[in-house]
Amino acid sequence: MTVITETNMTTARDLLAQLTLDEKIGMIHGSGLFRTEGVPRLGIPPLRMDDGPMGVRAELRNDEWKPLYNTRDHVTYLPSGSAVASTWNPDLARATGEVLGQEARGRGKDVILGPSINIKRSPLCGRNFEYMSEDPTLTAAMGVAYIQGVQESDVAACAKHYAANSQETDRLDVDETISERALREIYLPAFEEAVRDGGALSLMGAYNLVNGEQCCESKKLLDDVLRGEWGFDGFVVSDWSAVKRTKPSAEVGLDVEMSVTSNFDEYYFANPLKEAIEAGEVSEADVDRKVFRVLCVMDALHMLGDARARRQAGAYATIAHAQTALDVARESVVLLKNESGLLPLDEHAMRRLLVVGANADRIHSNGGGSAIVKALHEVSPLLGLNGQLGGNVEITYAQGYDAKQVAQDASWQEESLENSVGERVDDSERARALRGEAVALAREFAACGDPVLFVGGLDHEHDLEGRDREGMVLPYGQDALIEELLDAAPDAILVFVAGSPVEMPWEPRAKAIVWSWYNGCEGGTALAETLLGRVNPSGRLPESFPLSLADCPAHSVGTFGSGLHVDYAEDVYVGYRHYETRGVPVRFPFGHGLSYTDFVYDDLDVRRVDGAIRVGFTVTNTGVRAGKTVPQVYLGLEGVGEDRPVKELKGFVKVSLEAGESRRIVVTLDEGKALRYWSNAAGAYASAPEAGVMVGESVRDIRLLGRVA
Amino acid sequence: MTVITETNMTTARDLLAQLTLDEKIGMIHGSGLFRTEGVPRLGIPPLRMDDGPMGVRAELRNDEWKPLYNTRDHVTYLPSGSAVASTWNPDLARATGEVLGQEARGRGKDVILGPSINIKRSPLCGRNFEYMSEDPTLTAAMGVAYIQGVQESDVAACAKHYAANSQETDRLDVDETISERALREIYLPAFEEAVRDGGALSLMGAYNLVNGEQCCESKKLLDDVLRGEWGFDGFVVSDWSAVKRTKPSAEVGLDVEMSVTSNFDEYYFANPLKEAIEAGEVSEADVDRKVFRVLCVMDALHMLGDARARRQAGAYATIAHAQTALDVARESVVLLKNESGLLPLDEHAMRRLLVVGANADRIHSNGGGSAIVKALHEVSPLLGLNGQLGGNVEITYAQGYDAKQVAQDASWQEESLENSVGERVDDSERARALRGEAVALAREFAACGDPVLFVGGLDHEHDLEGRDREGMVLPYGQDALIEELLDAAPDAILVFVAGSPVEMPWEPRAKAIVWSWYNGCEGGTALAETLLGRVNPSGRLPESFPLSLADCPAHSVGTFGSGLHVDYAEDVYVGYRHYETRGVPVRFPFGHGLSYTDFVYDDLDVRRVDGAIRVGFTVTNTGVRAGKTVPQVYLGLEGVGEDRPVKELKGFVKVSLEAGESRRIVVTLDEGKALRYWSNAAGAYASAPEAGVMVGESVRDIRLLGRVA
Repeated sequence: MTVITETNMTTARDLLAQLTLDEKIGMIHGSGLFRTEGVPRLGIPPLRMDDGPMGVRAELRNDEWKPLYNTRDHVTYLPSGSAVASTWNPDLARATGEVLGQEARGRGKDVILGPSINIKRSPLCGRNFEYMSEDPTLTAAMGVAYIQGVQESDVAACAKHYAANSQETDRLDVDETISERALREIYLPAFEEAVRDGGALSLMGAYNLVNGEQCCESKKLLDDVLRGEWGFDGFVVSDWSAVKRTKPSAEVGLDVEMSVTSNFDEYYFANPLKEAIEAGEVSEADVDRKVFRVLCVMDALHMLGDARARRQAGAYATIAHAQTALDVARESVVLLKNESGLLPLDEHAMRRLLVVGANADRIHSNGGGSAIVKALHEVSPLLGLNGQLGGNVEITYAQGYDAKQVAQDASWQEESLENSVGERVDDSERARALRGEAVALAREFAACGDPVLFVGGLDHEHDLEGRDREGMVLPYGQDALIEELLDAAPDAILVFVAGSPVEMPWEPRAKAIVWSWYNGCEGGTALAETLLGRVNPSGRLPESFPLSLADCPAHSVGTFGSGLHVDYAEDVYVGYRHYETRGVPVRFPFGHGLSYTDFVYDDLDVRRVDGAIRVGFTVTNTGVRAGKTVPQVYLGLEGVGEDRPVKELKGFVKVSLEAGESRRIVVTLDEGKALRYWSNAAGAYASAPEAGVMVGESVRDIRLLGRVA
Repeated sequence: MTVITETNMTTARDLLAQLTLDEKIGMIHGSGLFRTEGVPRLGIPPLRMDDGPMGVRAELRNDEWKPLYNTRDHVTYLPSGSAVASTWNPDLARATGEVLGQEARGRGKDVILGPSINIKRSPLCGRNFEYMSEDPTLTAAMGVAYIQGVQESDVAACAKHYAANSQETDRLDVDETISERALREIYLPAFEEAVRDGGALSLMGAYNLVNGEQCCESKKLLDDVLRGEWGFDGFVVSDWSAVKRTKPSAEVGLDVEMSVTSNFDEYYFANPLKEAIEAGEVSEADVDRKVFRVLCVMDALHMLGDARARRQAGAYATIAHAQTALDVARESVVLLKNESGLLPLDEHAMRRLLVVGANADRIHSNGGGSAIVKALHEVSPLLGLNGQLGGNVEITYAQGYDAKQVAQDASWQEESLENSVGERVDDSERARALRGEAVALAREFAACGDPVLFVGGLDHEHDLEGRDREGMVLPYGQDALIEELLDAAPDAILVFVAGSPVEMPWEPRAKAIVWSWYNGCEGGTALAETLLGRVNPSGRLPESFPLSLADCPAHSVGTFGSGLHVDYAEDVYVGYRHYETRGVPVRFPFGHGLSYTDFVYDDLDVRRVDGAIRVGFTVTNTGVRAGKTVPQVYLGLEGVGEDRPVKELKGFVKVSLEAGESRRIVVTLDEGKALRYWSNAAGAYASAPEAGVMVGESVRDIRLLGRVA
């Protein structure tokens, strides 16, 4: 997809020719924390950027990480990247992007700093909640639709963080050793698709180093791959403070330097760059290339000249946007387990409901780092349940555990770079009292046959930019509480709101488990609707839930978060590619998610037609409720003479079926993409001659087997 | 309308016969700040009540005016009573009631303490924002629809405050001298309709005295008129702390005593009542009557026995409810003045917009007294404008004046009874700086032809339960600021958000004036849509806007807020009845409101048919936009031999017409109601033999004249 037209380039060239060096320099570095300098005499406005992927961040002062405090920057809080991916519905990713684009444009922004499409290498990464998946195919499909949605509003999406920003520990300095194959098959493809299919107008250069090279200085990443191979013609902005030297970044395709500091004239691309040019150390032609790219994007966004009259207007904080957030949230909740038909709850039979757990009564929009949102509203799970169940069910709430909430504000931005660790000591006396109260109530409710619901999980003290989690164990003593709750109420329904997987040692005893991500302003509504059966769950896990951290390839094979060198020794065996290939058991596999109805698969037919692989099969809803499911097509590439993952997701589709309905589905794969792999031997992409075809309800629940040859 | 059925009464009688005196006593006084005691052994639940008319109040502790602090009592913030009345659309009053009923039921309430249907006697009354109108016909029509809406959800509306609670000054002790005619024609009819047509299941007894008698002790009001004449069969609850003696209230139809104090056993209807019965001073039969009425209502609400399975469930804080709030807000905004076609703003031609005034950047749900709401969200005017105009218009905001905001919380309830007056001293240096900044900006914008918008008015430091305003002048030095703004920008558009009229000395110079009431969670959206012409304004003033306080009958003829005796000497000449009859000029007349299109009236035809007066006429939209208007039918009763107002509203209808559309309208008046008046000579209602008929766009803008005889 070419996004920059000849017309854009002509406009850019004309303007570039009229610019002084100072003006050019002003256009490629921050002169505010979220903007560059414009050139008023030529009608070139500043380029205004803002966080982030879950809604447009509250307005900050130009030169301080302090909010402006007003009523006009409330926005729609959108489901997180994980939540969007969990829908496995690109239409909803596009709708999310459309809302975000409209809101960004409405807030007067030119670039919205999202989506976050890094691959989830470890469950511990602090930004996993922003990221989509451990799988590049799913990430790419959702990311592309999201980007296209954003850019409908004359706002540039900014796919981030290029590349392989898969941990927060030492993120400014960590050097990741990653094989070419892992880069090409795991860490780069979503960016490739974001550029090629999504038409992303901007990318963000990551903080970290890859194979000894700063991402924001990497000729390989920025010039050879991104522009050479993929044909990217937008611009690359550095993550805030990711540029560390003038000349190495100036001489590659890193176009705009942003930083968390407010000494704007001292940015590497400010006075130091001008001095380097004047000293002959850097060529002005390098600057021209950067300015040209920025101008091309500006013109594509209708920011220049007469085209401004055609620019989309945008809108934010509207009821329609809240409705979209709800639509997405409804498809992102994952029903992990449901024995004995415990769910959905029968709201007509219910008289009382016990809700235990601090996450029931908590909102999450107000944390997380740069993804923080000043939400116009956010429905908590407790509000969702109360608001939906109404007066006929008496809901008793017990906190159960004490989740410390540390207020986060804009000053977080600077602090997080110091990688500080907050206070996490539990007050054990208070903890015991809370647990005792909750367990006693659970026993009493269970004795009366009244349902008991636990709503726990994580929060943005744990799912947080700038800091990885210390482990996969639930915080705040939740495991002990859950064990006691299951003793007291064996039918207790366990709900988790979190941005990344947790260990679930009590899982074999639990009958019903529901997973919600940070699910936007209507997350509590969607959760309640799902628990009550008003919505039939259709979310599918976009990442594996391992039994324990020790099982994760990044921790058992490679290294993670340990010192300034991290070895991605697991190579391409990330997530399910590891678990499936090595036969490692997991708690819940990639792609997993139950429904209140059942789906049966029949009649697989695989054929190669005109450069495509057409995978046909029949899906039948054999239950008594309408529902949606996600047939997933995996290939196991064969005949390549090198070790390969046994299964790789290549296609999927979200299907809605009425009760009893049967439908023929054809998933069409691009042959080139589907069979492509990186050959270590050739040091190049190659095409597998044949492959096993697996169609399933998850990577482990394969229903149909076939072959392509 | 009979609301209590024979079945309800049978159930109530059966239960009553089984109750002990203690149990009965528990059912007729507060045992929590918002509930009575139930009788668990007979399956009788507590009766749970809650404020208020603009949304269900946040949950308080049972015995303290302190919030519970959680996420589950956020609700939809609904447009105020004034705003609802301003739509002149009973369908929207019903929709508002429906949302409130669902939310009250959703929050587990049995009685919602609204609507507030007192007549606005003076612009200064602190609770005017809750009240609907100065006119009983408009108040009754809107109140009836509202009550019917509420009660669809098995929740009792509670029409308040019965009767004549038209000022806050000394509200606990003030004795109002009101003629029988004024009571019968002005202060009682809305309650009469609320009971007869609305089927209100409960009423609230007012704090004040009427003609020397406490409202909560008045045999005349509670027994003779309410139950005797109107046939009311619900219950009457006292305003909180309005019962002042045991025996006088016990012996009349005041059924439930509530109070702001938490010494529940010491309430007049608690131990003191029991002791009075045991001492033979009060008959237990009086208590039985009260309990019977409470039980009848409980059964009507499906709160007892098997009927509970049929009770509506309710819901709150939903997107659908926000949408209804927006629907109402859209029709309540009043376009007071619009010279030179200044409005609507042309959003496509606009590049910049200056917004001046603290009310642009302020929300109002969090104040006002018992009408306070913990809103899930509230869109400020500034957010509405930004959110709708999007990125193509740069909105500059200048505060302009300093509006002191005193945080209000639940503790207000007790404080307000002390009638305290807050700090209102302006910091004149800061005020000058703010004004100077705003005026300079206005001058600059005007010079460039860019629009200037002022958003001022009042807030809940002024429109506040428990305290009347001190005058009709705009606070915070707004008049001086407006004069300077109009000097600097003669085309400045003036917008007011307020709950009661203000003096507008600069009005002759202003070209465009827009009025919004406290307009619910989407008020800022509706205001922006109106200013931009996405919504064609159709609100009509439900009260006269006098030139000055001195013109008001309550201040020029009667007395107001002055000492413990207040004389309603203006008699029935309240509001426009005074201005029209006496020829007093006003700033904007009752019923006034402009549109972006024009309406022409033709072909009046008045006829009496079968006990009805049918007023037929043709309305044509002669403009180029679709729009809504409100034809208003006034009668001037004649031939009655006593002084009468020259015009009285008897009917109205909201009409939606496409551009160029013409429609025949027939407003059908009940002959008995339309010609009814209170004859001073007879000391009884009588019927006028003839009347002038006036059809107009306001009480002063009469388009058609006819007669009924």
